[in-house]
Amino acid sequence: MSNYKNILVAIDFSEASSSVIKRAVTIAQQNNTELTLIHSVEYLPPIDVAYEPALSASWIIDEKALIEQAKESLKSFCHQYNINNAKQIVVIGTPKYEITQYAGDNNIDLIIMGSHGRHGIELLLGSTANGVLHRMNCDVLAVKINDE
Amino acid sequence: MSNYKNILVAIDFSEASSSVIKRAVTIAQQNNTELTLIHSVEYLPPIDVAYEPALSASWIIDEKALIEQAKESLKSFCHQYNINNAKQIVVIGTPKYEITQYAGDNNIDLIIMGSHGRHGIELLLGSTANGVLHRMNCDVLAVKINDE
Repeated sequence: MSNYKNILVAIDFSEASSSVIKRAVTIAQQNNTELTLIHSVEYLPPIDVAYEPALSASWIIDEKALIEQAKESLKSFCHQYNINNAKQIVVIGTPKYEITQYAGDNNIDLIIMGSHGRHGIELLLGSTANGVLHRMNCDVLAVKINDE
Repeated sequence: MSNYKNILVAIDFSEASSSVIKRAVTIAQQNNTELTLIHSVEYLPPIDVAYEPALSASWIIDEKALIEQAKESLKSFCHQYNINNAKQIVVIGTPKYEITQYAGDNNIDLIIMGSHGRHGIELLLGSTANGVLHRMNCDVLAVKINDE
Protein backbone atom coordinates (compact mmCIF):
# COMPACT_ATOMS: atom_id res chain seq x y z
CA MET A 1 0.00 0.00 0.00
CA SER A 2 1.31 3.44 -0.90
CA ASN A 3 2.58 5.92 1.66
CA TYR A 4 0.45 8.63 3.21
CA LYS A 5 0.84 11.79 1.15
CA ASN A 6 -1.17 14.42 3.01
CA ILE A 7 -1.04 14.16 6.79
CA LEU A 8 -3.09 16.51 8.93
CA VAL A 9 -2.28 16.96 12.61
CA ALA A 10 -4.90 18.40 14.93
CA ILE A 11 -3.21 20.60 17.51
CA ASP A 12 -5.03 22.13 20.47
CA PHE A 13 -1.94 23.38 22.37
CA SER A 14 -2.79 21.16 25.32
CA GLU A 15 -0.03 19.14 26.99
CA ALA A 16 -1.11 16.29 24.74
CA SER A 17 0.16 18.16 21.70
CA SER A 18 3.77 17.29 22.47
CA SER A 19 3.20 13.51 22.15
CA VAL A 20 0.99 14.02 19.12
CA ILE A 21 3.47 16.15 17.19
CA LYS A 22 6.42 13.88 18.00
CA ARG A 23 4.54 10.88 16.66
CA ALA A 24 3.39 12.88 13.63
CA VAL A 25 6.94 13.94 12.78
CA THR A 26 8.10 10.31 12.89
CA ILE A 27 5.24 9.24 10.61
CA ALA A 28 5.88 12.11 8.19
CA GLN A 29 9.53 11.03 7.92
CA GLN A 30 8.51 7.40 7.36
CA ASN A 31 6.15 8.50 4.60
CA ASN A 32 8.57 11.05 3.15
CA THR A 33 6.07 13.90 3.34
CA GLU A 34 5.49 17.17 5.17
CA LEU A 35 2.83 17.77 7.80
CA THR A 36 -0.11 20.13 7.83
CA LEU A 37 -0.99 21.38 11.31
CA ILE A 38 -4.49 22.57 11.99
CA HIS A 39 -5.79 24.42 15.00
CA SER A 40 -9.45 25.17 15.39
CA VAL A 41 -10.39 28.24 17.38
CA GLU A 42 -13.64 27.69 19.18
CA TYR A 43 -15.11 31.13 19.25
CA LEU A 44 -18.57 31.83 20.57
CA PRO A 45 -19.24 35.57 20.59
CA PRO A 46 -21.14 36.42 23.76
CA ILE A 47 -24.16 38.14 22.32
CA ASP A 48 -26.36 39.97 24.73
CA VAL A 49 -29.68 39.07 23.17
CA ALA A 50 -31.59 41.52 25.35
CA TYR A 51 -29.84 44.51 23.87
CA GLU A 52 -27.97 43.48 20.80
CA PRO A 53 -28.87 40.35 18.86
CA ALA A 54 -26.52 41.23 16.01
CA LEU A 55 -22.71 41.13 16.20
CA SER A 56 -21.08 44.42 17.00
CA ALA A 57 -17.84 45.57 15.39
CA SER A 58 -15.89 44.93 18.58
CA TRP A 59 -16.65 41.20 18.48
CA ILE A 60 -15.56 40.98 14.88
CA ILE A 61 -12.25 42.61 15.84
CA ASP A 62 -11.91 40.13 18.71
CA GLU A 63 -12.41 37.25 16.33
CA LYS A 64 -9.66 38.52 14.07
CA ALA A 65 -7.38 38.99 17.09
CA LEU A 66 -8.06 35.43 18.20
CA ILE A 67 -7.13 34.07 14.80
CA GLU A 68 -3.95 36.12 14.70
CA GLN A 69 -3.05 34.93 18.18
CA ALA A 70 -3.67 31.31 17.17
CA LYS A 71 -1.51 31.75 14.07
CA GLU A 72 1.31 33.08 16.22
CA SER A 73 0.92 30.17 18.66
CA LEU A 74 1.00 27.66 15.80
CA LYS A 75 4.09 29.32 14.34
CA SER A 76 5.87 29.15 17.71
CA PHE A 77 4.77 25.54 18.12
CA CYS A 78 6.28 24.61 14.75
CA HIS A 79 9.48 26.44 15.64
CA GLN A 80 9.64 24.62 18.98
CA TYR A 81 9.44 21.22 17.28
CA ASN A 82 11.67 22.22 14.38
CA ILE A 83 9.00 21.73 11.74
CA ASN A 84 9.01 25.17 10.17
CA ASN A 85 8.19 23.66 6.80
CA ALA A 86 4.85 22.36 8.07
CA LYS A 87 1.78 24.00 6.57
CA GLN A 88 -0.07 25.90 9.30
CA ILE A 89 -3.84 26.24 9.23
CA VAL A 90 -6.05 28.10 11.66
CA VAL A 91 -9.79 27.69 11.34
CA ILE A 92 -12.63 28.99 13.42
CA GLY A 93 -15.49 26.77 14.52
CA THR A 94 -16.21 23.40 16.10
CA PRO A 95 -13.02 21.35 15.88
CA LYS A 96 -14.64 18.07 14.85
CA TYR A 97 -16.50 19.76 12.02
CA GLU A 98 -13.70 22.06 10.86
CA ILE A 99 -11.03 19.35 10.90
CA THR A 100 -13.23 16.91 9.00
CA GLN A 101 -14.14 19.64 6.53
CA TYR A 102 -10.53 20.64 5.95
CA ALA A 103 -9.50 17.01 5.53
CA GLY A 104 -12.18 16.41 2.94
CA ASP A 105 -11.37 19.57 0.99
CA ASN A 106 -7.60 18.97 0.90
CA ASN A 107 -7.13 15.29 0.03
CA ILE A 108 -5.91 14.46 3.52
CA ASP A 109 -5.29 10.72 3.84
CA LEU A 110 -4.33 10.61 7.51
CA ILE A 111 -5.46 12.68 10.48
CA ILE A 112 -3.35 12.45 13.63
CA MET A 113 -4.74 13.61 16.95
CA GLY A 114 -4.46 13.01 20.66
CA SER A 115 -6.80 10.46 22.15
CA HIS A 116 -7.22 12.30 25.43
CA GLY A 117 -6.83 15.86 24.30
CA ARG A 118 -9.64 18.32 24.66
CA HIS A 119 -10.47 17.96 20.99
CA GLY A 120 -9.27 14.38 20.73
CA ILE A 121 -10.69 11.31 19.13
CA GLU A 122 -13.47 11.07 21.68
CA LEU A 123 -14.94 14.29 20.40
CA LEU A 124 -14.19 13.60 16.79
CA LEU A 125 -15.30 10.00 16.68
CA GLY A 126 -17.30 9.61 19.86
CA SER A 127 -20.63 10.39 18.33
CA THR A 128 -21.26 8.18 15.35
CA ALA A 129 -24.84 9.41 15.26
CA ASN A 130 -23.96 12.68 13.60
CA GLY A 131 -22.12 10.90 10.88
CA VAL A 132 -18.74 12.50 11.40
CA LEU A 133 -16.95 9.20 11.04
CA HIS A 134 -18.93 8.32 7.95
CA ARG A 135 -18.17 11.67 6.37
CA MET A 136 -14.49 11.25 7.02
CA ASN A 137 -12.73 9.84 4.04
CA CYS A 138 -9.32 9.11 5.51
CA ASP A 139 -7.47 7.17 8.16
CA VAL A 140 -7.34 8.48 11.72
CA LEU A 141 -4.53 7.86 14.18
CA ALA A 142 -5.37 8.43 17.82
CA VAL A 143 -2.16 9.00 19.72
CA LYS A 144 -2.45 7.87 23.31
CA ILE A 145 -1.65 10.57 25.82
CA ASN A 146 -0.21 8.84 28.85
CA ASP A 147 -0.01 11.69 31.28
CA GLU A 148 -3.56 12.92 31.15
CA MET B 1 9.95 9.46 18.66
CA SER B 2 10.83 5.78 18.50
CA ASN B 3 9.21 3.35 16.11
CA TYR B 4 6.27 1.18 17.01
CA LYS B 5 7.56 -2.16 18.25
CA ASN B 6 4.44 -4.26 18.83
CA ILE B 7 1.64 -3.72 16.33
CA LEU B 8 -1.67 -5.51 16.75
CA VAL B 9 -4.08 -5.79 13.82
CA ALA B 10 -7.72 -6.58 14.50
CA ILE B 11 -9.05 -8.82 11.74
CA ASP B 12 -12.70 -9.77 11.40
CA PHE B 13 -12.49 -11.38 7.92
CA SER B 14 -14.90 -8.80 6.52
CA GLU B 15 -14.15 -7.15 3.17
CA ALA B 16 -12.62 -4.35 5.21
CA SER B 17 -9.81 -6.65 6.30
CA SER B 18 -8.04 -6.32 2.97
CA SER B 19 -7.50 -2.55 3.30
CA VAL B 20 -6.61 -2.93 6.96
CA ILE B 21 -3.94 -5.59 6.44
CA LYS B 22 -2.39 -3.79 3.47
CA ARG B 23 -1.99 -0.64 5.51
CA ALA B 24 -0.72 -2.66 8.48
CA VAL B 25 1.96 -4.36 6.36
CA THR B 26 3.19 -0.97 5.11
CA ILE B 27 3.37 0.37 8.66
CA ALA B 28 5.16 -2.76 9.93
CA GLN B 29 7.79 -2.33 7.21
CA GLN B 30 8.20 1.36 8.05
CA ASN B 31 8.70 0.46 11.70
CA ASN B 32 10.86 -2.57 10.96
CA THR B 33 8.71 -4.93 12.99
CA GLU B 34 6.38 -7.91 12.55
CA LEU B 35 2.62 -7.84 13.00
CA THR B 36 0.39 -9.66 15.42
CA LEU B 37 -3.04 -10.46 14.00
CA ILE B 38 -5.92 -10.98 16.37
CA HIS B 39 -9.35 -12.34 15.62
CA SER B 40 -12.01 -12.43 18.27
CA VAL B 41 -14.66 -15.13 17.96
CA GLU B 42 -17.94 -13.88 19.28
CA TYR B 43 -19.52 -17.04 20.62
CA LEU B 44 -22.79 -17.07 22.46
CA PRO B 45 -23.85 -20.64 23.22
CA PRO B 46 -27.62 -20.92 22.70
CA ILE B 47 -28.70 -22.26 26.06
CA ASP B 48 -32.23 -23.56 26.32
CA VAL B 49 -33.01 -22.25 29.76
CA ALA B 50 -36.25 -24.23 29.98
CA TYR B 51 -34.50 -27.56 29.92
CA GLU B 52 -30.82 -27.07 30.40
CA PRO B 53 -29.44 -23.96 32.05
CA ALA B 54 -25.91 -25.37 32.16
CA LEU B 55 -23.65 -25.85 29.13
CA SER B 56 -23.76 -29.32 27.63
CA ALA B 57 -20.69 -31.09 26.27
CA SER B 58 -21.81 -30.53 22.69
CA TRP B 59 -21.58 -26.76 23.03
CA ILE B 60 -18.12 -26.99 24.49
CA ILE B 61 -17.07 -29.05 21.48
CA ASP B 62 -18.65 -26.47 19.20
CA GLU B 63 -16.64 -23.73 20.89
CA LYS B 64 -13.40 -25.62 20.29
CA ALA B 65 -14.41 -26.20 16.68
CA LEU B 66 -15.09 -22.50 16.22
CA ILE B 67 -11.66 -21.61 17.56
CA GLU B 68 -9.97 -24.18 15.33
CA GLN B 69 -11.90 -22.86 12.34
CA ALA B 70 -10.89 -19.28 13.16
CA LYS B 71 -7.26 -20.35 13.50
CA GLU B 72 -7.40 -21.94 10.07
CA SER B 73 -9.02 -18.81 8.59
CA LEU B 74 -6.35 -16.60 10.14
CA LYS B 75 -3.60 -18.87 8.81
CA SER B 76 -5.08 -18.72 5.28
CA PHE B 77 -5.46 -14.97 5.59
CA CYS B 78 -1.77 -14.57 6.50
CA HIS B 79 -0.81 -16.84 3.62
CA GLN B 80 -2.98 -14.80 1.24
CA TYR B 81 -1.21 -11.57 2.18
CA ASN B 82 2.23 -13.15 2.37
CA ILE B 83 2.71 -12.44 6.07
CA ASN B 84 3.33 -15.95 7.32
CA ASN B 85 5.69 -14.60 9.97
CA ALA B 86 2.87 -12.68 11.63
CA LYS B 87 1.87 -13.88 15.08
CA GLN B 88 -1.68 -15.21 14.93
CA ILE B 89 -4.00 -14.91 17.90
CA VAL B 90 -7.56 -16.19 18.22
CA VAL B 91 -9.53 -15.18 21.28
CA ILE B 92 -13.12 -15.81 22.25
CA GLY B 93 -15.33 -13.05 23.58
CA THR B 94 -16.43 -9.51 22.89
CA PRO B 95 -13.95 -8.03 20.39
CA LYS B 96 -13.60 -4.62 22.03
CA TYR B 97 -12.84 -6.20 25.38
CA GLU B 98 -10.62 -9.01 24.15
CA ILE B 99 -8.55 -6.81 21.84
CA THR B 100 -8.02 -4.20 24.54
CA GLN B 101 -7.14 -6.92 27.04
CA TYR B 102 -4.65 -8.56 24.70
CA ALA B 103 -3.07 -5.20 23.87
CA GLY B 104 -2.62 -4.35 27.53
CA ASP B 105 -1.15 -7.77 28.38
CA ASN B 106 1.32 -7.81 25.50
CA ASN B 107 2.92 -4.36 25.38
CA ILE B 108 1.11 -3.46 22.18
CA ASP B 109 1.90 0.13 21.20
CA LEU B 110 -0.35 0.39 18.13
CA ILE B 111 -3.68 -1.23 17.28
CA ILE B 112 -4.76 -1.09 13.64
CA MET B 113 -8.38 -1.74 12.70
CA GLY B 114 -10.98 -0.89 10.10
CA SER B 115 -13.12 2.13 10.76
CA HIS B 116 -16.22 0.66 9.17
CA GLY B 117 -15.69 -3.02 9.84
CA ARG B 118 -18.12 -4.92 11.94
CA HIS B 119 -15.76 -4.74 14.90
CA GLY B 120 -14.17 -1.47 13.84
CA ILE B 121 -13.33 1.64 15.71
CA GLU B 122 -16.94 2.56 16.19
CA LEU B 123 -17.43 -0.49 18.36
CA LEU B 124 -14.08 -0.22 20.05
CA LEU B 125 -14.09 3.49 20.72
CA GLY B 126 -17.69 4.45 20.20
CA SER B 127 -18.68 4.13 23.80
CA THR B 128 -16.43 6.19 25.98
CA ALA B 129 -18.75 5.56 28.92
CA ASN B 130 -17.42 2.08 29.55
CA GLY B 131 -13.91 3.35 29.69
CA VAL B 132 -12.52 1.24 26.87
CA LEU B 133 -10.58 4.16 25.46
CA HIS B 134 -9.28 5.11 28.85
CA ARG B 135 -8.15 1.57 29.56
CA MET B 136 -6.31 1.40 26.28
CA ASN B 137 -2.70 2.27 26.72
CA CYS B 138 -1.60 2.53 23.12
CA ASP B 139 -2.18 4.34 19.86
CA VAL B 140 -5.07 3.32 17.62
CA LEU B 141 -5.13 3.66 13.84
CA ALA B 142 -8.56 3.52 12.24
CA VAL B 143 -8.14 2.57 8.59
CA LYS B 144 -10.90 4.02 6.48
CA ILE B 145 -12.80 1.45 4.49
CA ASN B 146 -13.94 3.18 1.33
CA ASP B 147 -16.18 0.57 -0.17
CA GLU B 148 -18.50 -0.03 2.75
